[in-house]
Amino acid sequence: MHDVKKVNVMEGILDENDHIAAHVNEKLSKNGILCVNVMGAPGAGKTTTLKNLIRRLDGLVAYVIEGDIESDIDTQELLGLGIQAYQINTFGACHLDAPMVESMVDSIDLGRNSILFIENIGNLVCPAEFSIGEHVKMLVASVTEGSDKPYKYPLAFEKADMIVLNKVDLRPYVDFDEEFFMKGVRALNKDAMVFKTSGKSGEGFKEAAAWLSWKAGQACNGNQHHGR
Amino acid sequence: MHDVKKVNVMEGILDENDHIAAHVNEKLSKNGILCVNVMGAPGAGKTTTLKNLIRRLDGLVAYVIEGDIESDIDTQELLGLGIQAYQINTFGACHLDAPMVESMVDSIDLGRNSILFIENIGNLVCPAEFSIGEHVKMLVASVTEGSDKPYKYPLAFEKADMIVLNKVDLRPYVDFDEEFFMKGVRALNKDAMVFKTSGKSGEGFKEAAAWLSWKAGQACNGNQHHGR
Repeated sequence: MHDVKKVNVMEGILDENDHIAAHVNEKLSKNGILCVNVMGAPGAGKTTTLKNLIRRLDGLVAYVIEGDIESDIDTQELLGLGIQAYQINTFGACHLDAPMVESMVDSIDLGRNSILFIENIGNLVCPAEFSIGEHVKMLVASVTEGSDKPYKYPLAFEKADMIVLNKVDLRPYVDFDEEFFMKGVRALNKDAMVFKTSGKSGEGFKEAAAWLSWKAGQACNGNQHHGR
Repeated sequence: MHDVKKVNVMEGILDENDHIAAHVNEKLSKNGILCVNVMGAPGAGKTTTLKNLIRRLDGLVAYVIEGDIESDIDTQELLGLGIQAYQINTFGACHLDAPMVESMVDSIDLGRNSILFIENIGNLVCPAEFSIGEHVKMLVASVTEGSDKPYKYPLAFEKADMIVLNKVDLRPYVDFDEEFFMKGVRALNKDAMVFKTSGKSGEGFKEAAAWLSWKAGQACNGNQHHGR
């Protein structure tokens, strides 16, 4: 009995979430704004990735919504760099949901033909289950997490449109089997773009930013759609 | 309305979970078995920590229950090392709960005066909310995750009895501010034991294993209690 009730409530929550996510997506699409849901484990380097991408988005304005359980450390850092950043604190919740994002999007003034990055809670499980209005799901993974992550946390890898494999500068010091990692990724997801990056050296971000700029161009021309 | 229903169901789930967790705890306590709930982000080094601790548990038998969404990679590795390991797959769920652990504990034959490690799903958020019958909550964090984690994911740090700060061999290659990290830890948790470890060099595990052996001795003498 308990399980049935639990499942029904979860389905209701997911239905309601998807409805609001579609509404957010439509609103952003109309304004030519590409929305990127940035996911990854705690410490994968999501904020570092955003800093590196945003400075390489030639001529495009970027906005960031930072999702954290508590604290505004990343938002303050981005603001200090002159990046327009806004904080959502969930105070316990393990992922962002579409209603949280809708409230924030409705309260800020986003320019047309831009990119909105939404950095989700650091969590390789729950955020992958909830759409928040994005056109692109970006998964940041790092070599320090180990090469078995696609096998252990399949949903995030399955749903990603873009995988940033970060901290490649640390490869000499950790056991990371790239072949095993990519085999796991491709078993789940044939099409995701994969970029190998380093927040230390900056490598790989130029290519990742170029791909996002191209996606943003599609959005601007009204050709964007959910996912790939 | 929706939120009220959600909260009520969650409270019901937590009550039921805590009831079963207390039952598991009592059963293990009666048999002098110290139960350790091993938590941490994906890739923090939980399994590596277990391998390093278990070989240093002088004369104590250890059992491991591995929690993973999918795969049995870690269980197979532990079995290969001669460690008695058992797999729980949650197929989607982001944390272990007490009913899952109770079913497993009831189905395996645990010797008296031993240690049972339960490796939770790699997730710095949700597992901290659910007791699973443990006497000790062990949090594995790694320097590669960054020093801001206690500020962003406070509950896991607040509830830990024991914090293993892992991958200290990588400190020369990453920006990790230990003073800031420890300030965050101590603001939440004055008493947790903190051990600095490296899966590469083995440093720190001797001390951590000694502390666990002492806790297990208390369990064996019937002096154990939940947490510290």
